[in-house]
Amino acid sequence: MEYSQLKVSDFGEKSLIKLIIDKTKKYQNILVEIGDDASILNIHKYDNLIVSTDMLIQSRHFPKEMSYKEMGFKSVTVNVSDLAAMGSKPLGFLLSIAIFKDLLIEDFDQLIEGVLDACDYYNIALVGGDTNEADEIIISGTAIGTNDEKILKKSGFKSGDLVCITGKLGLAALGFELFDKNFSGQISKIAILKALKPIARIKEGLILKDFATSATDISDGLSSELYELLNSNKEKLGILIYEEKLNISEEYKKVSKSINKDYLDLVLNFGEDFELLFTVSKENSLKLKEKLKFIVIGEVNNSPIVEIKKINGKIEKLSSKGYEHFS
Amino acid sequence: MEYSQLKVSDFGEKSLIKLIIDKTKKYQNILVEIGDDASILNIHKYDNLIVSTDMLIQSRHFPKEMSYKEMGFKSVTVNVSDLAAMGSKPLGFLLSIAIFKDLLIEDFDQLIEGVLDACDYYNIALVGGDTNEADEIIISGTAIGTNDEKILKKSGFKSGDLVCITGKLGLAALGFELFDKNFSGQISKIAILKALKPIARIKEGLILKDFATSATDISDGLSSELYELLNSNKEKLGILIYEEKLNISEEYKKVSKSINKDYLDLVLNFGEDFELLFTVSKENSLKLKEKLKFIVIGEVNNSPIVEIKKINGKIEKLSSKGYEHFS
Repeated sequence: MEYSQLKVSDFGEKSLIKLIIDKTKKYQNILVEIGDDASILNIHKYDNLIVSTDMLIQSRHFPKEMSYKEMGFKSVTVNVSDLAAMGSKPLGFLLSIAIFKDLLIEDFDQLIEGVLDACDYYNIALVGGDTNEADEIIISGTAIGTNDEKILKKSGFKSGDLVCITGKLGLAALGFELFDKNFSGQISKIAILKALKPIARIKEGLILKDFATSATDISDGLSSELYELLNSNKEKLGILIYEEKLNISEEYKKVSKSINKDYLDLVLNFGEDFELLFTVSKENSLKLKEKLKFIVIGEVNNSPIVEIKKINGKIEKLSSKGYEHFS
Repeated sequence: MEYSQLKVSDFGEKSLIKLIIDKTKKYQNILVEIGDDASILNIHKYDNLIVSTDMLIQSRHFPKEMSYKEMGFKSVTVNVSDLAAMGSKPLGFLLSIAIFKDLLIEDFDQLIEGVLDACDYYNIALVGGDTNEADEIIISGTAIGTNDEKILKKSGFKSGDLVCITGKLGLAALGFELFDKNFSGQISKIAILKALKPIARIKEGLILKDFATSATDISDGLSSELYELLNSNKEKLGILIYEEKLNISEEYKKVSKSINKDYLDLVLNFGEDFELLFTVSKENSLKLKEKLKFIVIGEVNNSPIVEIKKINGKIEKLSSKGYEHFS
C-alpha cells in the first residue's frame, strides 16, 4: 500500500504520539520534556510546572451505567492521575466541555458537581474552562501541578529494582464486564464501584517520588505499561513478574470464569484502576514499606523482554495488549 | 415548565458558564480569577500564570473548505487569542486531539504540522498532549502564558474612555459566507483567507497592557463582546459606537448585498476575526497611537446600554446577538 493511502488506524496510538513528538523535536528547541505521563515545564520564570491533558468522550469512555456526577469526577481523576505518576502535587484543573442541546439542566448541574467534588477531593482549584455544543458529552481536562525537587519519570529504573503496584489490579476491568449482568456478592459491588468512580493515587505519588526509581499510572493495562517503562529506558533491561504476586483471589477467578473471561487477561490487559506502577531499589523498598502499602509483583532483569511466571511454574513472554486507540 | 424538565438549550452558553462559576465559588475558596478571557493563577510558587482552554469540533467549527493544516493552526490561534486579550505573553500549548479511524496519515501529519506552524508563529512550545478516537476531529487546546506586571481585564474602563479595535471587523464573517460562492475580487480573497487562517493579536495585547483600561478578544462578535465588557464592570456604564467609524468599505457593502446579507449584521454579530476590543483613556490613546495601529469606534458613557449611531444619524440600541452555543 502506498503511504498516501495509509490511515491513522494503520498506525495505532503510540505511533501517532511518536510522530507528534518527533515532529515537535524537529520544529522546536525543546524546552520541555514530553512523552512521560505529564510534561515537565521549566519555562520563563516557572520551574517544574507539571501539566497534563486528557479527553473523555461519552460514547467511548462513559458506560451508560455511569451517572453524570461520576462522569465529572472521572474527568478530573484521569488528569490528576498523570500528575500522580510524576510524584507531582496537583494545583489546578481546567475544564473544556462539550454537551448536547437536550441535556437536562439537572444533569449538567450534576456533571459540574462531580467535577467540583473531585477538585475538592484532590484539594485543587477549578481554574478555568470552556463550554461547547456537540452531539455527545466530551470532557477535555488539563491538570496543572508542581514538583519541588524530585520528579518521577518512567525511565529511571536499574536492573535488580523491584517492580511494584500501589494496589490490586483488575477490579475496574471486572466491573465494566459486570454492568449488564446480575451479580450479587461483595466482589461484584466493589468492582462496579471501582469502574464507576476510580480514584487517582495522588498521596501515593507524593510519597513515591522520594523512594521510587520510576513510575507510571496504569490507565491502559499493566502489560502495556510495563513495556512503556522498558521503552523509556535506554539500557536493554527486562521485567519478570509473578502471577502469584498479583494476589488474584479465588472469588475473582470464579466470577471471571462465570462470565467467560480469562481472569489474567482482565488483570493484565485492561487499565482503569488508576493504580501506579513503579520500580524501587531493594534497599529503598524497606524504607518505603513504613510509609505506604504496596505490592511487589516482580523485578527488573537483563533480558530485554517482559515475562510472567505463571502459577504452574511456566515462564511466558507477556505481550503488550493494553488498550490502544486506533488498533 | 418544571425545573427538572429544563434542558441546557433553555439556558444558553453564558448562563451555563455563570452556573459553573457560581458553583465553583460556592465550592472553593477561589484562588483564581475566572470569567475573563483567560484565568489568572497565583497559586503555590507560581505568580501570574495565565491559562485558557478552548475546544474546536470539526462539524461545528471547521468549514469543509478548511485544510487540515489550517485546522491545526486555528486550534492554537483560538487559545492564544484569549491570552492576547489579557496582555499575556504565551509560553506553551497543550494539544488534546480526537481523530477518526479513517483519517489519512498524511492529513493527520498536516494537522500536527499546522499546530506546530502556529506554535512557531506565536513563538511558543508544544508542551504536551493526548490523542483519542472519535467520529470526527475534536481539538481541545490549553494555552499557558504569563504576565509580569499588569494584566488586562474586561472590567477596568471608566466613563469617557475610548472604545477601540485592533483592526477592521467582518472580513472573516464575509469569508465564511463566500466559501461556496464563486466570487472574484480582492475583498473576497482576503475575506476567505481571514476565515481560514485567523491570526491572534499577541503583539498588540502585549502593547495594550501598558495603555488600555480593559480588553477582550472578539471571538463571538462585537455586539456581544461590548455587552461582555459592560457586564464585567460594576458601575452602570454604557457604550456608544459609530457605524461610520467601523470603516466599512463600499465594496464590502456591495458584496454583502449581492449574497443577501446585511453588512452591519456581518460586522457586528459574528466574530472569528480575532481582533481585540479594548478601551483606553483619551490621554493614553495619544501615547498608544505611536506604538500601535488601531481604530476608535466609540466611547464609554453613562447610559447603561450599548448603542450604535448609524450613518443616517439615528441612534439605535444594539442587542447582544453574537454567537452563543445552545441558544
